[in-house]
Amino acid sequence: MEIPGVVIARLPLYAQALEALAQKGEEVVSSQRLGEALGITPAQIRKDLSYFGRFGKQGRGYNVAGLLGSIRQILGLDRQWRMALVGVGRLGRAILSYEGFAPQGFHIVHAFDVDPEVVGRKFESLVVRHVRELEETLAQEPVDIGVVAVPPEAAQEVIDRLVRAGVRAILNYAPMTPRVPPGVQVRRIDPVVLLETMTYYLKGQEGVRFLQGRDPLFLR
Amino acid sequence: MEIPGVVIARLPLYAQALEALAQKGEEVVSSQRLGEALGITPAQIRKDLSYFGRFGKQGRGYNVAGLLGSIRQILGLDRQWRMALVGVGRLGRAILSYEGFAPQGFHIVHAFDVDPEVVGRKFESLVVRHVRELEETLAQEPVDIGVVAVPPEAAQEVIDRLVRAGVRAILNYAPMTPRVPPGVQVRRIDPVVLLETMTYYLKGQEGVRFLQGRDPLFLR
Repeated sequence: MEIPGVVIARLPLYAQALEALAQKGEEVVSSQRLGEALGITPAQIRKDLSYFGRFGKQGRGYNVAGLLGSIRQILGLDRQWRMALVGVGRLGRAILSYEGFAPQGFHIVHAFDVDPEVVGRKFESLVVRHVRELEETLAQEPVDIGVVAVPPEAAQEVIDRLVRAGVRAILNYAPMTPRVPPGVQVRRIDPVVLLETMTYYLKGQEGVRFLQGRDPLFLR
Repeated sequence: MEIPGVVIARLPLYAQALEALAQKGEEVVSSQRLGEALGITPAQIRKDLSYFGRFGKQGRGYNVAGLLGSIRQILGLDRQWRMALVGVGRLGRAILSYEGFAPQGFHIVHAFDVDPEVVGRKFESLVVRHVRELEETLAQEPVDIGVVAVPPEAAQEVIDRLVRAGVRAILNYAPMTPRVPPGVQVRRIDPVVLLETMTYYLKGQEGVRFLQGRDPLFLR
């Protein structure tokens, strides 16, 4: 059975909420309470989880550790994932030093750049290699995921190289939409795009406020 | 007419692609070509844009600068947006120094933290204030958007304070799902959640590869 992508996309949020509950020492959680924590209806949670079998008993809620373990297994988080970073500028160095990856099983094992000031230097115990060594390095020590933090005009070429080297999942920090062959996943991480999806509504609210009698000049 | 959220969410990507075309000196673009650049069908692009009126002429494509200007206006990007950052740790400092915000009209004008080692220090020309001054500061110099880069266990309280101070849009870097009242928008930016939506499929591919005869032990 094909699981809808939106269901898969919600599972990491379930896992995160369950981890927070487990850290607080909670052993059981209702779909009601989990829904409140996530802003999702309890019916949606029960429906999402029903794709993967039976969890919890009617009226007794879910066992926090058990459900968390199952979701981590479904998502493939019961193993370690190897990543290659391309682009070790200011953003790339922030990514290298980000402490949120390792606890979830994500490890940057290679870092590449083209800048002669950066290639050969060590950041967070990784020596930066030149991008021209990318294919050879990944042939010898493969990775599962490529993390792209290069300027947008260099990103397509870098992503092409990663794909040629066998990488099938890309986390793209460059503000552009790359072309990739079928079977290669890309996730964009771009704060500006997220901000721009909110300003439309902020602008709308402003219009509403002004309509209610403040300054009609600002309406558009 | 209510515009579907998915349409609004695609507009920043259109704007980004049109900016790249404009920088290359392109004056006209077909929905076909724009679609190829974005991995969206031309029909979808025409349908999305039809919500906002008539753009382009049948068979002649869109005027790049004109369409870009219209989309920027629709999204409210023809003005400047003021933001307050809460959390000036390692991540917060990377956000403060991120060069992608200002060219798109987003400006961090206040920064807050609770750490006595950080409060009073200057980063990127901003003096960090204590979080307890948040409400008073925003009452005097309001912002449109709050950017939250505090640890997950502190994030709900910070977001509550921002909302009480009148902020209606939150860009949340903390790995948690906050509760907010209706009318407040939150966008999560979390690389781990994005990675976790890919590993499900990577795991699947691995299963497929192994099914084709490599190592049945790894199947689950």
